Amino acid sequence: MSTDDQNQSGPIGFPAVPAPDEQARRQAVARHEQLTKPAGSLGRLEELGVWVAARQGACPPRPFARPRVIVFAGDHGIAAHGVSAYPSDVTGQMVGNFLSGGAAVNALAAGAGATVRVVDMAVNTDTPPVVSAHKVRRGSGSIDREDALTAAEVDAAINAGRTIADEEIDSGADLLIAGDMGIGNTTPAAVLISALTGTEPVAVVGRGTGIDDNAWMRKTAAIRDALRRARKVLHDPVALLRTSGGADIAALAGFLAQAAVRRTPVLLDGVVVGAAALVAEELAPGARQWWLAGHRSAEPGGPLVLDHLDLTPILDLQMRLGEGSGALTALPVVNAAVRVLREMATFAEAGVVGPTEAEATGPTA
Amino acid sequence: MSTDDQNQSGPIGFPAVPAPDEQARRQAVARHEQLTKPAGSLGRLEELGVWVAARQGACPPRPFARPRVIVFAGDHGIAAHGVSAYPSDVTGQMVGNFLSGGAAVNALAAGAGATVRVVDMAVNTDTPPVVSAHKVRRGSGSIDREDALTAAEVDAAINAGRTIADEEIDSGADLLIAGDMGIGNTTPAAVLISALTGTEPVAVVGRGTGIDDNAWMRKTAAIRDALRRARKVLHDPVALLRTSGGADIAALAGFLAQAAVRRTPVLLDGVVVGAAALVAEELAPGARQWWLAGHRSAEPGGPLVLDHLDLTPILDLQMRLGEGSGALTALPVVNAAVRVLREMATFAEAGVVGPTEAEATGPTA
Repeated sequence: MSTDDQNQSGPIGFPAVPAPDEQARRQAVARHEQLTKPAGSLGRLEELGVWVAARQGACPPRPFARPRVIVFAGDHGIAAHGVSAYPSDVTGQMVGNFLSGGAAVNALAAGAGATVRVVDMAVNTDTPPVVSAHKVRRGSGSIDREDALTAAEVDAAINAGRTIADEEIDSGADLLIAGDMGIGNTTPAAVLISALTGTEPVAVVGRGTGIDDNAWMRKTAAIRDALRRARKVLHDPVALLRTSGGADIAALAGFLAQAAVRRTPVLLDGVVVGAAALVAEELAPGARQWWLAGHRSAEPGGPLVLDHLDLTPILDLQMRLGEGSGALTALPVVNAAVRVLREMATFAEAGVVGPTEAEATGPTA
Repeated sequence: MSTDDQNQSGPIGFPAVPAPDEQARRQAVARHEQLTKPAGSLGRLEELGVWVAARQGACPPRPFARPRVIVFAGDHGIAAHGVSAYPSDVTGQMVGNFLSGGAAVNALAAGAGATVRVVDMAVNTDTPPVVSAHKVRRGSGSIDREDALTAAEVDAAINAGRTIADEEIDSGADLLIAGDMGIGNTTPAAVLISALTGTEPVAVVGRGTGIDDNAWMRKTAAIRDALRRARKVLHDPVALLRTSGGADIAALAGFLAQAAVRRTPVLLDGVVVGAAALVAEELAPGARQWWLAGHRSAEPGGPLVLDHLDLTPILDLQMRLGEGSGALTALPVVNAAVRVLREMATFAEAGVVGPTEAEATGPTA
């Protein structure tokens, strides 16, 4: 990897993203018309079932055999400048909490039938080898004044995310959920969202972990300064991750793009995953066809991401934790959509008069 | 029961509805502050966990041992006047479909870990004894020109709903979901909603099973005519059910009121259950404290009910099927809220620096 080449995305190239299966999509739409309910009466649940059928290339769709959450953990240099309510130590402590099963992601994954993997991309402390195999560095440069990563680091991080997607898909994961953990990570996320959606920083800055007014002002100023640096590389997604991201966010972007390349559906979570998704769509145009938005985050950047990617969230529960928590809360709704297409009887099977026959007969007395 | 007494609710009386447990509510709020996440960051999921704790009188709340869906089926005389896209025959056919497991409610209940019971309150055809034990009559009077039920029938129907709630709770049901099935049932529902929320019929009338413009005009005219009759008994909920309801809706109202009296939480479904809930709140003031709104129905009456009862829906997926389908799709979200309070580690247990310590320390470099 050449460091001369900092404004080009040379070494990173994703193949074309395949389209979902049009035939399976049509079969699912037609099947919904035959199931024992008025057509369209299950609303979004019908659409979600059709979506899954088209991604699996199968109608009815299969129940997900191995839904898998990957939490990308990393620290951020900007956290030293008072943009979070928590100290950076918490990132490593939370990795321990994930491993011992005490975090929100663990409780929600258990309820939704998913399993959890944590990857340390850039935590400030040492973590067990089981999570640090893909670690790129500790923390990141403070993006208001310096690049987050070197050119070699950003390539390594994107490739790590890509490899992680491959590992999971090769191990049978048929639905991927991306989560995030990192004190300070909503600051680079806000910079990326602001840059890629053309939104003023004040409209993107949220309270993150729950910061006070002074921290909010520091965070807004940091984002404004970082955005000046980001705008210079706006049209090069790899350079944007290098300048304004971090190893965790770069890995997330590689992961999301590779999942699409591998035809594997993804449930997106909140604002940090959303920021990575914006970049992933630049890295691999069309990748968004393989993503569902689990929820609408309470962080202001969340809805901006959804609008930009033209994704409609499944849930709107004012969640803003990250870790994959919003996506995991939505997973049972997606599973319900699959069950409807698989398990419901057709009018013919159930001996119920369908709407066509009813129309032919007219209302009976 | 006296038929002289048609404008009085004499024979039907519910005892005072007990309040939820304030101590358990406070414990749950306090526990959320100690769990390893920024306070409030799980948004509505935190509120739902607190809600369940206060209803169970226990913190952390228990997982629901026996969530139970009761589908109240009945035909309606008004269906003879072309207000539905389907003939009345479909009601009895769908009861068969519920029993053989092919309906949406079956698929969704299986996914959410709930079991289904169907009760025939007023189906036009004969149904098996297992579902017809509480049957009051066949169909109902055409409410645009005559009463739906006699005084004896409405009392019998309300008491049947009450008995069904008792039967289920005595058999261990700790979360009740009410569902509906009946061709034409959104017409009496619209009349009740229009009457009790003071809304013009045109703002309440929906497409039900998917009617065309002509059927929509017939339905609106029927509701307008029925509403003239309903307004005369507006302040007597039993008389209102007699005049403008039906045995299925009257039983639903008795069921929802009795669940509250028995301190058993309920997940409400769509517009027909919602109409019954409006009446149940009149029958047993405060009953709504024991109800959660599973979803916001795509039928226009749904949001009117939620506003009137001051309930915030968990989901908004443009569903309008009934059968309990919206409530069942929301059930995993409620279960997730319970898991969070039960399974997450506290800051102290996980060795994670909490926000208080972080504030005391200040942002670290």
